[in-house]
Amino acid sequence: MIKWQPGRAPRAAFHGPQALSVSLRTKTNIAITLLGVIAQMKSPLPESALDQLFRAAHTAHGFRPEPVSDETLHELHDLLKWGPTSFNCQPARFVFVRSAAAKERLKPALSPGNVAQTMAAPVTVIVASDSRFFDLLPAQYPAYDAKPIYENNPTLARETALRNGSLQGAYLILAARALGLDCGPMSGFDAAAVDAEFFPDGRFRSNFLINIGAADPAKFFPRGPRLTFAAAAQIL
Amino acid sequence: MIKWQPGRAPRAAFHGPQALSVSLRTKTNIAITLLGVIAQMKSPLPESALDQLFRAAHTAHGFRPEPVSDETLHELHDLLKWGPTSFNCQPARFVFVRSAAAKERLKPALSPGNVAQTMAAPVTVIVASDSRFFDLLPAQYPAYDAKPIYENNPTLARETALRNGSLQGAYLILAARALGLDCGPMSGFDAAAVDAEFFPDGRFRSNFLINIGAADPAKFFPRGPRLTFAAAAQIL
Repeated sequence: MIKWQPGRAPRAAFHGPQALSVSLRTKTNIAITLLGVIAQMKSPLPESALDQLFRAAHTAHGFRPEPVSDETLHELHDLLKWGPTSFNCQPARFVFVRSAAAKERLKPALSPGNVAQTMAAPVTVIVASDSRFFDLLPAQYPAYDAKPIYENNPTLARETALRNGSLQGAYLILAARALGLDCGPMSGFDAAAVDAEFFPDGRFRSNFLINIGAADPAKFFPRGPRLTFAAAAQIL
Repeated sequence: MIKWQPGRAPRAAFHGPQALSVSLRTKTNIAITLLGVIAQMKSPLPESALDQLFRAAHTAHGFRPEPVSDETLHELHDLLKWGPTSFNCQPARFVFVRSAAAKERLKPALSPGNVAQTMAAPVTVIVASDSRFFDLLPAQYPAYDAKPIYENNPTLARETALRNGSLQGAYLILAARALGLDCGPMSGFDAAAVDAEFFPDGRFRSNFLINIGAADPAKFFPRGPRLTFAAAAQIL
């Protein structure tokens, strides 16, 4: 088994008595081939990056007042947009609610327990989905005519928008963490009220919300327990 | 506006005529406070990490033969499990289909265009969801009794499992990339056939598949166009 460590060759490649009888030229060719393979293999990110993305990341329930700039929001989108979606369909839409006036429009739709943290967050992202994402498929995936698959199957279209829009929401969470920001995702809000206020023509539907900014660590909750590998996974 | 750059103080903090009249002691206190804020602020990951996670990552359509070890699959789960879910509900289940025998069980359910790449992938993950995730909520989120919210609302439960199970699938994709692996996610398969074969008791439902391993770059497709910020996002 190859361990995905930087610059480490597959073990046992040069071991065993057979290797002793291999000519220098063959050994050199094997070494060059192995170096080529190693050069193509990507290394794991440093431990500090894995901590920042996953192990030490914490859902934010309170924020420090530092604002999030337009430039940072563009950087965020320029990362998350590369995440994969079915037929490159990209159904997610992102409304960055940042001004006090826009926050006030969002406020009545929030669950009471989410009001304070959302009003304090530098930005709250409405992650929405385009219910007519398939109209864009001819431009987004010209190699194959996938539009009819969804246009003629509203249940599949709705499920595809939710699945892929959620993937893109997760890409946003991890892209934000990669940029040094903290996230507080939330499902506790009145989706119909958000849609009526922000998407009155009915084409876009809110999926979930994400507060982003620099977290106030004093307002972290203790982390909940995570399912073990044995409880959540199996290898067949 | 603060740019989230390492070790850079908020601009204009010491600028302007007012600052000239501030005492040395006040200035020192401000500086110490600012240093504290800066120390708490996380830095963006290096450009090479942003490339590996997002900008240079490519959906894999072919793989090199290097296997993926049990240890790597455990490392992968130990990262992705930390991603946030509603009420810490963690509905996703991951079946790592690796052996030839298990691949043969999966094969008849694949869309024809996905057979070759899936049979060649070192591992294919069935990302499934637990339709009774709410039974685990008392243990996973003891602070609040959220179980009845879902148990009494099958539509909400189904939607929550799909949303959060998809988030966790995206965490897996980015955790795999963070470990230096490549991913090929797919929705092209017969979900009912996968469920009948792998989850015959009906509790778990397949959501999507992800091939993982070391990609053969010769089999990359050209990347599809991505929606611009103006097409996919707005700042209010």
